[in-house]
Amino acid sequence: MHDLRFYRSLGPFSAKVLADQLDAEVIGDASREIISVASAVNCGRSELSFFDGRPSDGNSISPEAGICLVTEAVGEIMSDDITRIVVSDPKASFTALASKIVHRREPWEERTDLPPTTIANSANVAPSSTLAAGVEIGAHTSIGPNVSIGPGVRIGSSCVIGAGSVIETSLIGNGVTIKANSVLGGSGFGLAPTSDGLKYIPHFGRVIVQDNAGIGSCVCIDRGAFDDTVIGEGAKIDNLVQIGHNVKIGRNAIIAAFGGISGSVQVGDNVMMGGRVGIGDHLKIGDGARLAADSAVMRDVPAKETWAGTPAKPIKQMMREVAWLTKQATQRRK
Amino acid sequence: MHDLRFYRSLGPFSAKVLADQLDAEVIGDASREIISVASAVNCGRSELSFFDGRPSDGNSISPEAGICLVTEAVGEIMSDDITRIVVSDPKASFTALASKIVHRREPWEERTDLPPTTIANSANVAPSSTLAAGVEIGAHTSIGPNVSIGPGVRIGSSCVIGAGSVIETSLIGNGVTIKANSVLGGSGFGLAPTSDGLKYIPHFGRVIVQDNAGIGSCVCIDRGAFDDTVIGEGAKIDNLVQIGHNVKIGRNAIIAAFGGISGSVQVGDNVMMGGRVGIGDHLKIGDGARLAADSAVMRDVPAKETWAGTPAKPIKQMMREVAWLTKQATQRRK
Amino acid sequence: MHDLRFYRSLGPFSAKVLADQLDAEVIGDASREIISVASAVNCGRSELSFFDGRPSDGNSISPEAGICLVTEAVGEIMSDDITRIVVSDPKASFTALASKIVHRREPWEERTDLPPTTIANSANVAPSSTLAAGVEIGAHTSIGPNVSIGPGVRIGSSCVIGAGSVIETSLIGNGVTIKANSVLGGSGFGLAPTSDGLKYIPHFGRVIVQDNAGIGSCVCIDRGAFDDTVIGEGAKIDNLVQIGHNVKIGRNAIIAAFGGISGSVQVGDNVMMGGRVGIGDHLKIGDGARLAADSAVMRDVPAKETWAGTPAKPIKQMMREVAWLTKQATQRRK
Repeated sequence: MHDLRFYRSLGPFSAKVLADQLDAEVIGDASREIISVASAVNCGRSELSFFDGRPSDGNSISPEAGICLVTEAVGEIMSDDITRIVVSDPKASFTALASKIVHRREPWEERTDLPPTTIANSANVAPSSTLAAGVEIGAHTSIGPNVSIGPGVRIGSSCVIGAGSVIETSLIGNGVTIKANSVLGGSGFGLAPTSDGLKYIPHFGRVIVQDNAGIGSCVCIDRGAFDDTVIGEGAKIDNLVQIGHNVKIGRNAIIAAFGGISGSVQVGDNVMMGGRVGIGDHLKIGDGARLAADSAVMRDVPAKETWAGTPAKPIKQMMREVAWLTKQATQRRK
Repeated sequence: MHDLRFYRSLGPFSAKVLADQLDAEVIGDASREIISVASAVNCGRSELSFFDGRPSDGNSISPEAGICLVTEAVGEIMSDDITRIVVSDPKASFTALASKIVHRREPWEERTDLPPTTIANSANVAPSSTLAAGVEIGAHTSIGPNVSIGPGVRIGSSCVIGAGSVIETSLIGNGVTIKANSVLGGSGFGLAPTSDGLKYIPHFGRVIVQDNAGIGSCVCIDRGAFDDTVIGEGAKIDNLVQIGHNVKIGRNAIIAAFGGISGSVQVGDNVMMGGRVGIGDHLKIGDGARLAADSAVMRDVPAKETWAGTPAKPIKQMMREVAWLTKQATQRRK
Repeated sequence: MHDLRFYRSLGPFSAKVLADQLDAEVIGDASREIISVASAVNCGRSELSFFDGRPSDGNSISPEAGICLVTEAVGEIMSDDITRIVVSDPKASFTALASKIVHRREPWEERTDLPPTTIANSANVAPSSTLAAGVEIGAHTSIGPNVSIGPGVRIGSSCVIGAGSVIETSLIGNGVTIKANSVLGGSGFGLAPTSDGLKYIPHFGRVIVQDNAGIGSCVCIDRGAFDDTVIGEGAKIDNLVQIGHNVKIGRNAIIAAFGGISGSVQVGDNVMMGGRVGIGDHLKIGDGARLAADSAVMRDVPAKETWAGTPAKPIKQMMREVAWLTKQATQRRK
């Protein structure tokens, strides 16, 4: 279910109404109504999801799902407890429908449904910063000049938010530092090819930054598609880092400059990354692993191991290959 | 000819006046006057260009050129229809002269020569954004907080411009998304070594973003030196990407995070790039080509091919080399 | 000694008072007082430093040091002229103490101790920019919209500061260009593991940008820990570059996009770097050296040499290895 601070439903919509918009057929209870959207694996009775059978989208669907966009083949084998809408490309149909069901609240929207912006007396908010409706700023927190904070954002106590940063659709804990000109809460880089060109997949999640995390300058942290992007307690992120949608960064993890963490990656606690480490999507980096500078990680990394290289592998193996190549290329030339 | 929305001429200037500033000699009609600047290949009668015979600067000069800065050797063989000013370093002399001929309009300049800023009634412009003179904002477009829009910029309808973005010397189509803290229209990274240190080469082009293109957060897109930097229709660019001056990005092309596209590169339609792809200057990437994450492209890539590696090569070859090295280094060690 | 424009002392504090806060023992004159902090090698009589015997922290301590945090082993062999406080982890103890001794001045602080903000008549400062107390802006300098300038910053004459840039704890020379959305003067990415999680090491230095240097968009330049980060005269830095704390960039050096210069690196005069060059911390790049695009430098580079690759080596050797590998992998497959 979407977070009401950041999103609002335009529903309810029945399966019949949704199917009509797609010129599609309903299998099951066509009168069932939904008010929100969800991933297939977490879908509840009042939510719409899609399932296209690719593991990267989660390889199962919740038995509690309300309405699911499916291909014909999948529709026939799915439980009758779930209302199905049969389409040729579930992801594209979901992309077309979802933003008509749930809207992200815009900064200029009037908000009469939630408490007004609350700023602790001991907080310092620069006059040139812009706070949208429903923002909450904790005690002893400072907000720098030209900061933009979107509707419903919560920032805890004793935080320092650097000048020019943009924070939307995010919940920030206590003792968090975010340096200048960083961007939290933008939509992720998910694309659906359609007959009308490439479309962005809509995003309904949030960014969660836990207590005492630190984020550098010009860092981008995208919000989750359905779930949340999470920066763990005490984690420290250097300047010019990209954190994709749905990523989980563990506690006290360290990411040096130019780190690029693709969508849905899970980084364990106490992981250390040198500069310019890239990690491919959906991978897992075990607790306490170390990734040398310039590693391009294309497989899961076990806990406590140190990897390096492109593609990344255990550092001893990488160094052996580098040394062997240098030696061979030099010898053979003689 | 420079776009009058963004630039203004301080001219006209005769060849004699310009040559006197350089203590240089004129060959041909010294009374010919110019009011603008151009690249050699596109130079018209009322424009100044330079030609130093290096292919990267275009290996021909327009027969319609007005005045051309040339070396002595080139000056002697060039058509008498073109007025020549003979100098030892045409690029350095052009760099010294050009910004005295054409000025970029500055945000604080009074503008009585062009229509006033026009904002559609249905547009949402955050009060903390700054719009310079002569800006045009289309219907249903939203401009976030702390956005800075330079003089003469046109933004079409149904666009979303994220907080803190800076847009100068650019024309933005309809349905375009630009996320937070991106920078469009800065001058490119062209340098001329002079006896007085490194100087920036002045830039007289624009950034053109076509309809339905999408641009991430903390993206930098430099404007062209003479011509335009163009982002094609429906193209999607992730966060923290650098697009150099004069680059052409094709329709529905995809560039993931940390992509670095050097000056004058041409990227075809439907090209897909993984994260952290770098492309050397003046290269061409054919339609539908795919570049794997971390590719460093140093040669043209043919259409529809998939390349990878550093330096990039066809992916099968790259993978063969990686596998062979791993095998050899392991075997030889035993 | 800290720069009074940017920092202020909460002292004086005696060795006894400091040691009591750490539950630690004093060796030597416990009544000695300090008012500031410094690196061990540059520490004066009225300053606190720490020494943990690791070369990266400077492998010597000034004989003029006032109070030094040391391990027991070091404390016993150090000159009696220096007051020592014995702790198990000098760096962690320094991190805990230092920010209680010297505070960085915050933008919202009242300042009665220094001259008021001074803006030259011929300067153009956009109304939406924010200037803190004690700022000095020189003649003919332009400050774009939504710029944030911190307390005590000095910007010389004929500078251009792009929209959305953030400049703190910095001294900027004359003729300097800083493009949009860059960040100068943030604290560096130094971390101290403590029993309470990872803590940032406090920073007491500055950023110095010398005359005629040019800095791109979305560039991050961190201030020094104790000393200064320096961008040399006429140096040119492209977009999306990271410059770590204590780095020295030489005169007329060129750093292309995505350059990543780690902490305490020294880059010589006239060095040229292609795109996406990374340099490991504490390394030295000799005058006139060239680093090819995508180089990952892990050793010092001698003056005037051209290096390339990961790890970087002389370019001829790198190219030989690349060619040899391609040839071997192709031959062996047949």
